Amino acid sequence: MYSLGELADRLDLQFSGDATRPITGIANLASAGPSDLSFFVERKYLEQLRTTGAAAVIVAAEYAQQCPVDCLLSDHPYLMFARASQLFDGTPQPQPGVHAAATVAAEARVHPSASVGPHAVVEAGAEIGAGSVLGAGAYLGHGSRIGERTRVCANAVIYHDVQVGSDCVIHSQAVLGADGFGFAQGPRGWEKIVQSGGVRMGDRVEIGACTTVDRGALEHTVIEDGVIIDNQVQIAHNCRIGKNTAIAGCSGIAGSAIIGANCTLAGGVGVVGHVEICDNVHVTGMTMVTRSITEPGSYSSGTPMAATGEWKRNAVRFSQLDAIQARLASLEKQR
Amino acid sequence: MYSLGELADRLDLQFSGDATRPITGIANLASAGPSDLSFFVERKYLEQLRTTGAAAVIVAAEYAQQCPVDCLLSDHPYLMFARASQLFDGTPQPQPGVHAAATVAAEARVHPSASVGPHAVVEAGAEIGAGSVLGAGAYLGHGSRIGERTRVCANAVIYHDVQVGSDCVIHSQAVLGADGFGFAQGPRGWEKIVQSGGVRMGDRVEIGACTTVDRGALEHTVIEDGVIIDNQVQIAHNCRIGKNTAIAGCSGIAGSAIIGANCTLAGGVGVVGHVEICDNVHVTGMTMVTRSITEPGSYSSGTPMAATGEWKRNAVRFSQLDAIQARLASLEKQR
Amino acid sequence: MYSLGELADRLDLQFSGDATRPITGIANLASAGPSDLSFFVERKYLEQLRTTGAAAVIVAAEYAQQCPVDCLLSDHPYLMFARASQLFDGTPQPQPGVHAAATVAAEARVHPSASVGPHAVVEAGAEIGAGSVLGAGAYLGHGSRIGERTRVCANAVIYHDVQVGSDCVIHSQAVLGADGFGFAQGPRGWEKIVQSGGVRMGDRVEIGACTTVDRGALEHTVIEDGVIIDNQVQIAHNCRIGKNTAIAGCSGIAGSAIIGANCTLAGGVGVVGHVEICDNVHVTGMTMVTRSITEPGSYSSGTPMAATGEWKRNAVRFSQLDAIQARLASLEKQR
Repeated sequence: MYSLGELADRLDLQFSGDATRPITGIANLASAGPSDLSFFVERKYLEQLRTTGAAAVIVAAEYAQQCPVDCLLSDHPYLMFARASQLFDGTPQPQPGVHAAATVAAEARVHPSASVGPHAVVEAGAEIGAGSVLGAGAYLGHGSRIGERTRVCANAVIYHDVQVGSDCVIHSQAVLGADGFGFAQGPRGWEKIVQSGGVRMGDRVEIGACTTVDRGALEHTVIEDGVIIDNQVQIAHNCRIGKNTAIAGCSGIAGSAIIGANCTLAGGVGVVGHVEICDNVHVTGMTMVTRSITEPGSYSSGTPMAATGEWKRNAVRFSQLDAIQARLASLEKQR
Repeated sequence: MYSLGELADRLDLQFSGDATRPITGIANLASAGPSDLSFFVERKYLEQLRTTGAAAVIVAAEYAQQCPVDCLLSDHPYLMFARASQLFDGTPQPQPGVHAAATVAAEARVHPSASVGPHAVVEAGAEIGAGSVLGAGAYLGHGSRIGERTRVCANAVIYHDVQVGSDCVIHSQAVLGADGFGFAQGPRGWEKIVQSGGVRMGDRVEIGACTTVDRGALEHTVIEDGVIIDNQVQIAHNCRIGKNTAIAGCSGIAGSAIIGANCTLAGGVGVVGHVEICDNVHVTGMTMVTRSITEPGSYSSGTPMAATGEWKRNAVRFSQLDAIQARLASLEKQR
Repeated sequence: MYSLGELADRLDLQFSGDATRPITGIANLASAGPSDLSFFVERKYLEQLRTTGAAAVIVAAEYAQQCPVDCLLSDHPYLMFARASQLFDGTPQPQPGVHAAATVAAEARVHPSASVGPHAVVEAGAEIGAGSVLGAGAYLGHGSRIGERTRVCANAVIYHDVQVGSDCVIHSQAVLGADGFGFAQGPRGWEKIVQSGGVRMGDRVEIGACTTVDRGALEHTVIEDGVIIDNQVQIAHNCRIGKNTAIAGCSGIAGSAIIGANCTLAGGVGVVGHVEICDNVHVTGMTMVTRSITEPGSYSSGTPMAATGEWKRNAVRFSQLDAIQARLASLEKQR
């Protein structure tokens, strides 16, 4: 719980209203109650702002007049909402120390302020930094390292020779460092190329649930500082994902692809192997990136959704497109 | 084992044949043996019906003449096959009780008839109802609840503040309640919006292996009664999936999307955030739903598969489509 | 560590250079140091070959002249690199035996040379063959079997009645044998069809992290010898994947699809249910296979990526394609 004045202080914001007003949580404008903080970001919610039952609202100065309750004034209300949400973080925190039902190798180093949950495993040579959490049932392989204040959630798996930075979150069932998909064709079928590279992840990285980041074939797969990756994403061996890039759910990045900094990939995007995407590129949902991108901007592929009957009539013409263009060219010649 | 008469009784069906005939399992028409029950649904298997070696067949009355063996008569043979399969369910059932190698918080409540497997974890404030199973290595977070007769398979993870109803199945590696993908852009990069909502799931819900259902940002993510979700599906924060909707494998539903009741999404479908899909909508495989759907019916996107050479010739024309239409318009003006 | 002569012997290759030269690892041409083995496969790396600091290089005879260091001569340098990588495999190997923190049913059979990691579970009737590894936290269900020298990585789950062959790798969070997505529609909503088939996997199969292979409805799902499957792939119930077929990440194969031998599916491919794909088919990335394929060759669907503005102008014309063709036909009639 904070008073409004304390919140303003923590967020470094001006406020108007009762400094002593108690604030106990955060809520949307429509559902906020008399001890909740809310926030106003999009004009379409203006009516909700005018009628909110919140204790106070984070709002840009130009809308303060229309806020019927106390205000925290900010030019960046969404960002301030994010920071406020961190102040009210109610995620259960485990006790420091190694749980009696964990299995930690004698040769591992776990900082006394770190927490290792029940049935978690820490292999020889692994290290866990101050304030970090290895959740219940999670696995940390030989020689792998977790920085400080990083949270590895229940049952996540980190193979050997993987380094995770500080202030990261690795969600459940994520897998860091499984073998890249490397095989050579031989007379006996596929022969495995042992994947001897590791994974190197920077600080403030978030890895979603069921997301996989493969180890490198010979060199490392690299995830730079501040990268955020949603659930169900596949990052193949020897990829490099640049600083502060965001990748939404169900995307797949094939081997040795290099993605620049500050890119955003929407959901379901595919990137083929060995391409390079420059900084500041946005890729729209379910696009397939089939070649390198050298200019910042937004890129897309795919076709519009339609009722299936209508779609079918058009889709069949797609298969005739080259012929259609030839017919058109033929008519053009005749005129 | 049932006799044919007992089966007819259990399924509330008429039968013709030997009431005492022993039935020990279910099989397809072609492979069924002399103590197997089979079923006939599609006309294309008529020859298999005529030559089946089954003990008995669930069949519509109009085909009973062509069935060489005993019959269970039903207007809904596929549904009756489903119910019969439940009678012969041979899935191994664990013993009730908490396994000695499980870790259950003192403040958790586990019904005496429930089962908690080895290396499973139940956190403080969590509850497991009568007859439910928390499989080996599975995790149930703080304050989360599982109803009655629900089966959570090995290594599945349920974060804190997640409620799962009764008669559900949660398959292995499913993750319920991981953080939604919520971040605000700030001067230091992405700043996390703490996801303080939970997940609320109704009764008779099935969640496939490696499927993820994120917790809400401020309010809950909701999965209504009777929803069935296949493997490898991503349901983002604050989605609402309506009653009896079915979502096939590898689909991804982005944040705050609302899907109505009795919808069917085929495999690999993507739904963008904040759209609304009404009841009784079918979406065909790998379609991207980019806008709200307000009319029941079937919807599609994508292009037909072809041999790669032919596809390339047409695909390159896709990139010229606007020009092709302009050329066509120009010809039309001249006529 | 090997000497160059020993390596040549193990790989059955001719060499030129110092037979006693110590080789301690493998590296790319550009980064290899004086005790590393490297390999030359693609002409575009010729300059790297000429300047490599490796101890020795696997190279085709025609390029040996341009290699400044010792050579191992092979017509198949990539395959030989794969085999060499196996000789230098540094993946940590667990001790044989059952870890004290594992839970193994009395009625299970674990070969003395096999390893069962901490918090792993082996149910009654399960078997683990010689030299195999069931990793930490992994689960092996009732009556399931693992052959010899197979590695099941941490937290992978194998349900009951699943057979895995010899020399396989099953990566973390993979799920073998979860229920197929089988339901019948009834008056009370979806009714589950109990999935009573199992999974049968051959030898030398690799299953990627977070990949799911469902059990069959009545008969088995089958993965034949030598199949390699990347991460995040879904194989539905009753599929059959033919010998030596490779499936890249994020692909999904719907129920009862049959894929032949020696096929390659690139990433993100979808295959609808009940189709049959013959041997030696290649499917390009993110293609949707909507019908059976009876001729070997390469198949594709989708549209080319473009800048979003340009793409939009063309995509909107896709929705008019049938009309465009009609307009074209009308003009053609008039000429």
